[in-house]
Formats: sequence, C-alpha cells, structure tokens
Amino acid sequence: MQVEFWFEFASTYSYPAAMRIQSLAAARGVTVAWRSFLLGPIFQQQGWNDSPFNVFPVKGRYMWRDMERICEGLDLSLRRPTRFPRNGLLAARVVCSHADEPWIPDFVRGVYSANFAEDAEISDPAVISRCLETVGQDAAAILAAAQMPASKQKLKAQTAEAMERGIFGAPSFLVGSELFWGNDRLEQALDWAARAAR
Amino acid sequence: MQVEFWFEFASTYSYPAAMRIQSLAAARGVTVAWRSFLLGPIFQQQGWNDSPFNVFPVKGRYMWRDMERICEGLDLSLRRPTRFPRNGLLAARVVCSHADEPWIPDFVRGVYSANFAEDAEISDPAVISRCLETVGQDAAAILAAAQMPASKQKLKAQTAEAMERGIFGAPSFLVGSELFWGNDRLEQALDWAARAAR
Repeated sequence: MQVEFWFEFASTYSYPAAMRIQSLAAARGVTVAWRSFLLGPIFQQQGWNDSPFNVFPVKGRYMWRDMERICEGLDLSLRRPTRFPRNGLLAARVVCSHADEPWIPDFVRGVYSANFAEDAEISDPAVISRCLETVGQDAAAILAAAQMPASKQKLKAQTAEAMERGIFGAPSFLVGSELFWGNDRLEQALDWAARAAR
Repeated sequence: MQVEFWFEFASTYSYPAAMRIQSLAAARGVTVAWRSFLLGPIFQQQGWNDSPFNVFPVKGRYMWRDMERICEGLDLSLRRPTRFPRNGLLAARVVCSHADEPWIPDFVRGVYSANFAEDAEISDPAVISRCLETVGQDAAAILAAAQMPASKQKLKAQTAEAMERGIFGAPSFLVGSELFWGNDRLEQALDWAARAAR
C-alpha cells in the first residue's frame, strides 16, 4: 500500500517528517509518493498572509521550542532559519515535475537540511542547484525546465488537489482518502497503509 | 515531580488527555495538578469568536475524524456533541475552587464523559450537579459557591495565568516553565517531569 506524503519546504514540522518517512515506510512495506505543494494559497483562504506561526507569535514561540525538543530526540540537526518562512516554490516545482524519479527522496532531504540545518536560502537557485548536483542531477537543465509554464501549472494543479482533498497544513499524509496531519501522525499513517494492504 | 494539566471542558483533545493522565502519571511517579481555564479569552486575542474548528471548517472536519481514530484506539466512547463548543464555565469554576481535593480527577472525567460520550449539556447546572453527586459531593453547596464573586475571580485569574505562561490551546502541560501542547504531547510531558525529578 502507498502513503502520499504532502509537504511544503517552508514547513518546520515537515522537516522531521521528511527525514524519517522513507525508512519508517520501508520497515512496514509501505511505498511513499512524494507530493510537494504550497501552503500560501491555503493559508490565504484562511485569511493569513504569512505563516500562522508568525501571525500568532505565542504559537510561534512554542513551535520553535517544540521543534528543538523533537529534533534533539531524533538526533537531527536544527538551526533556526534567520528567515521564516522561506519561499520553497522553486524546489516544490522541481519535485512536482520529477516526483517518481529515484533521486527525489535524497533531493527533498537535502533541501530540508539546507533550510533547517544549514540556514541556507532555499529560494536562491544556486542553493537548489547545489542540492540537485549533490544527488547527481543536471541542475541547469532541471532548473530551466522548472521555469517553464508546464512546470508552474503542474504545481498549481497539485496545490489545488491538496485543497480539494482536505489538506490544510503540512506535513499531511493520505492513505486513499484517509487524511493524517502533522509529523506526530506519521507512524499512524504508515500503520494505516500497512493494515490497508492486508 | 509535578505536571500541571491545563484543560478546557469544551476542548475535544482535552477529553482523551483527561481520561489518560492520571494512570500514566502514576506509572511514572509523577503527580498531576489539575488546572481548569477558559479558551474563549485566549481565542478572542487571536481574533476568533468561536472555536478555531468552527472558524476553519476544513480543520474542524479533520479534527472530528482524528478524534474518532484516537478514541477508537483508546477504546474510549465518543459521541459527537450536538452542540460544539459547549460552555464549560460552571464546571471550570468548580474545579478551580477545589483543585486539590481528591474527588476532582473523577469529577473532571465525569464532565468530559458527559460532553463527549453522552452528548449532555454541560452548561446546564443539573448536569454538573449530577456529576458532583456521582463523586459524592454536596452539589447544591458547591454550585452555590461557584456563583460567588470569589469563585468567578479565581477562574479569571487562572485563565490570565495561563496566558502569561504562554498557553494558547488545550490541553497544555507545564513542567516548571516547559510547555507541551496537545494530547499528543502527554507522554512526553510526563517523561519530562519524571526525568526532572531525578
């Protein structure tokens, strides 16, 4: 059975989920479909022009402390980004247009590490280019394609699909129409997929 | 070591936390301080005049499904209340004025069961009266005291304290100044308290 992993590169809690999902899924015999999307249009529908963690600073302070505890527990490096949220549009387009290629999981993890462990500016094509080269890809060709209308349209359609299927935050996991929200629900979603397969 | 359990009777995710906390805490040698408060004034500061699960219906639909899964996993009865959120003011005043008395945990669980398992109207003094009698208390005397200015003032002050200490939702757990938010964080908060004691 398959779990769809819906993530946004700006999303803090998507970071530990992205780093964990592949091995946890493999241990259960579950395959992962990597689905990038944008939270911006979804948040705008809720009346927010920024991350809710900035709109509601008390919640934001809590989230950063919670992230520290989570990453410490997972032995995962965390450096609070000097800019939050960062614009993950370019990286999201790359993933959306190459979702089924075998280098995608490593690329996704590389972009999350850049944002949340290295405090690198993931909206900068040079940073995404480096992430592509690290996984052995032709960065120039892929980035050029990402700027084409077809690539832009594909990510727009995928974000619209996320909304239609009830996604309102990231990370989200879908097993068929069963929705799970948050890094906290990763194991539950994978167990659900493993049970559904039986 | 002690964990402070901050809860609101209208809060859905506080229900499984309230039902679970006492035995999980005892197993770790942790004591629980029962702290009722009101989310209304906190949500108003964020610009909401209703539960965020009503303000954002997509999130609300998800929450009810998530609650079904959680309660099923815990073998906990759940009947979706015909009115949501219910006004837990009276019950919160009772708890606030009697927080350290030994019947409080049973009373709290009784009120949560009324709201979320029996679909009973917990803003109705008759329902709270029944919950008090079930735990062997003099309902008339306690409800009369709950309407006095001292009782009202006490809950106001406790809600103000919640805000000052960074609480923005329910359930919340405090171990000293370390804040944990959500039923999902119950075990982590208790483990934190147990470690802090060593």
